[in-house]
This record gives sequence, C-alpha cells and structure tokens, in this order.
Amino acid sequence: MTRIACAQIAPTLGAVAANVELSASAIADAVAQGADVVVLPELATSGYMFADADEARSAALRPTDPAFDAWRSAAVEAVVVGGFCELGDDGLLYNSAVALDGDGVIATYRKTHLWDREKLIFTRGSELPSVLRTRHGAIAVMICYDLEFGEVTRRVAVEGAELIAAPVNWPAFPRPEGEHAGEVITAMSTARLNRIAVAVCDRAGEERGQLWTEGTAIIDPDGWVIADAGPGPGLVIADVDLSRTHDKMLTEYVDLLSDRRVDLY
Amino acid sequence: MTRIACAQIAPTLGAVAANVELSASAIADAVAQGADVVVLPELATSGYMFADADEARSAALRPTDPAFDAWRSAAVEAVVVGGFCELGDDGLLYNSAVALDGDGVIATYRKTHLWDREKLIFTRGSELPSVLRTRHGAIAVMICYDLEFGEVTRRVAVEGAELIAAPVNWPAFPRPEGEHAGEVITAMSTARLNRIAVAVCDRAGEERGQLWTEGTAIIDPDGWVIADAGPGPGLVIADVDLSRTHDKMLTEYVDLLSDRRVDLY
Repeated sequence: MTRIACAQIAPTLGAVAANVELSASAIADAVAQGADVVVLPELATSGYMFADADEARSAALRPTDPAFDAWRSAAVEAVVVGGFCELGDDGLLYNSAVALDGDGVIATYRKTHLWDREKLIFTRGSELPSVLRTRHGAIAVMICYDLEFGEVTRRVAVEGAELIAAPVNWPAFPRPEGEHAGEVITAMSTARLNRIAVAVCDRAGEERGQLWTEGTAIIDPDGWVIADAGPGPGLVIADVDLSRTHDKMLTEYVDLLSDRRVDLY
Repeated sequence: MTRIACAQIAPTLGAVAANVELSASAIADAVAQGADVVVLPELATSGYMFADADEARSAALRPTDPAFDAWRSAAVEAVVVGGFCELGDDGLLYNSAVALDGDGVIATYRKTHLWDREKLIFTRGSELPSVLRTRHGAIAVMICYDLEFGEVTRRVAVEGAELIAAPVNWPAFPRPEGEHAGEVITAMSTARLNRIAVAVCDRAGEERGQLWTEGTAIIDPDGWVIADAGPGPGLVIADVDLSRTHDKMLTEYVDLLSDRRVDLY
C-alpha cells in the first residue's frame, strides 16, 4: 500500500517565506503520519490571485531556490509534489510543480494548459507531463486545468502512470446540492477510465475575494473518492494499492487500454 | 429548447416483434409528450444476453427491415435513436443503432468499442460516429462502451455535436452509497469538458440473471444530471437549450476546445 497525503493549506499571496514554512510544516506533518507521497496545492509558495505579471515575478522562484531545501528536508523518504511560481532561466514565468524527495529534485513540470487570466501572466509549458519512476510509484504530475484534458490523462495512463498527483487551485463554482464539484467528477472519471489513482490537492483561504472549491480528493483506481477535505485547511490521507493499476482488465474480455480503437483515432 | 426523452424499457430476449411493438409504443408516448429527440436502449429490438452468435443471428434485423417502419411511423417529427442487432449485407452481426425520423433512416452506426462477451458475437464497426445534422440538432450517436473513450467523445464535440445520444445496456456494478454510477460520472464529465448535452438511455428488466444499472440520464451542457430514471421501466424527459453548446467559453479567457494543446498531443 502507498500512503498518499494531500495538504489543503491556505497560502498567503506574495508571502513566499511564510508559504514555504507553512508548506514544509505540512509535509513534515504528513511524513509523521507515514505518508509516502505528499501533494501540495498549485502555486503553494506564492498564492494565486496576482494582479499582473510584475506581482507574480516578485513571488517567483527558480527551481534551484533554497526554499526547496526546506521541502526536501521535510520529505525525508517521501515523494513531494507541489506547485510554485517559477522564474525560468529564460526570464519567463511558469506555473510549475516540482517533484522531489529527500535526495533532491526529481523533475519540474510547467503547466501546459493555462486557465483564464493565467494566460496574461505565465508562459505555457512546452512539454506534456512525463511519468516519473519514483521510489513510491510511477507518478504523473499535472496542474489543475491539465486534468480536464483527456488527451493528457489518457497518455500518462498508457505510459504506465500508477498515480496522477495534481496540485490545483480550483476557483469555487456553484453546483447542485449533493454533487461533487465538476472537477472532482472529471478526476473520478479519469481514474475509472484508466484504472489509475488520482490525488488532487486544492487550497483553502480566501484571496482577493476569490473562494476555492476546497475540493481536495484522493481517488482510487476504480474511480471512487476514498478521502476528501472539508472546508478550510486540512490534511487528507488515504492508503492506495497502486499495484492494482497494472491490471486493466475489468472483466474477462474488457481491457481498458487495448479496447481503444487506435486504428480509427 | 429541445425536448429530449429516453425510454428505459425492458426488452425481452429474442422476442423481436414484441420488442418492436414495445419500443414503438414508447416512441409514441414520448412524442405525445412533445419530445423532439427520443433515445431507446442498446439492442432494444433483440435483448442483450445472447448465449452465442447463432442466437443473436436469430434476432438480427437488416436496417431495411419493416420493423423500423413502426419506429418511423411513431416518430412523426421527432428524431429517434435506438439500438438493434444488425445483420449486415456482409452476413456479419453488428451491435448497431439507427437514427431516423418520420421521413426515414438518417444513419446507421455500428458500435466501434465492443464490451466483454460482445466480442464473441459481434464484429466491431469500422467507422467512428459522425455528427448527424438533424431537424432537432447536431447529434452524435454512440453505443454504451463507446462513451468511455474520450478519444471519440472529444472528436464529435470538435466536429460540432450539440448532443450525444447513447443507447446503452449498463450491467449493474456495485458503487458506494450516494454516488452516481461510474458510467454516469463519465457521461457528466464528457458533457462538462466539451459543453455538450448527453442523453443516455439504459434498459430495465432482468435477463438471464443479469441486472442493469437502470441509469438512464439526461445531462445538460454544464455536466449536471437534469433528469434520470428510477428503477424499472420509465420515460425520462428534459428540455435542453442545445444552442448553449455553441459557446465553449467558460470565462473571458477559457475556451474548452481552443485550450487544447494540439501542438503537443
């Protein structure tokens, strides 16, 4: 079993040092509870509601920033996936996520599908997420709106992902009573169509009038939510048998991946 | 507004004449209630639980069969989408659906993604569903397991479908209390990711020990179930503004289709 934790924290816009401390502390809490994989929200180090690119730039970090030493140090044996506002070597801003463990950075991913006003601030990543072979499983890192593109989620399943770990900041949308958030429904569908686990870490806390779905959820390879967050900050933990994702046979003759008609698409 | 009806009937295995009468009567009921589009279950004329291909062959119809005159005659001004067991001119069996109105057959579609033991009986269709420009909107016909392939559902959305009309026979699977069936979750996700309506018509009635989800649902272009069936036979009706599906902008800068990274897929 793999113990997955999502830390639905409430970062403060622009307060990078405080956010790094908050997130490192959340990682340490999760590790103390035996977490193998820890997911943090999108833009966890910076907050989200930037007025413009200049403001984002003032909260941007390079992937080599010592801030990530705090995450690495808290991670110990765990794999951490968390979002940050990246200043690239090219001088451009990216909405990125890092995957790391106690030994160092495993990979940095730049969000390829930018949401709404992010397009005014960030540059789109030029590479789709790859499947990272970590000490705790084959993990694909996606950021928020990326999850809404089956083109990408299917691709990582085909490439052997056992778990999609997704930092998100889901702006609150209205929904009918008793329903999961639409984004959760898509994450559930993604899990069941590909028989992979999905761990989505949303954020809490109002920011410049924006409220969040606070929809953090851990979804098993059958597509069911096995742990989720209530409103407000909190740590969500669940154990998932990722080896189950290797078997794509639902019945004697149903194979979720081989049943694709790749001859027709 | 377009009035959509799904007739969750209970066909009897092999009783073609009775099933044609039952389904034509369901069409007439729906039309009497003002339906513009009427969806029937998968294999509505034949039943589903064939022991083998020989048994299926004995319940197969050619698309020119007079049985469809009964549907056409009941349809009047409505567009009907319903499943049948097809005997092709090539002598092969297909799990098919016909779209027709009072003027005649609009198109026949052969299921491209066969589920489980269907592979022992039917031949897979060689063409993906096209978008039919009918008097009541741009409709893509899919059959059951087809809906589980985002490769296809995305494609018809890009091609301008306003509505996916899907005859299904969903075998009952266990699910956590309070959750929609997994197949409904995927249909909801499909609707919201593409801003299209989805009308799924399941069947009722036990057949050779097989129970069905009885999950008939009409889903609006935001991805919410606006009408669904309880257990047992029943007619589900909802009005949907299909013109809403033309606008893919969720916010000022979010375009569900243009935001795809077709440069990377």
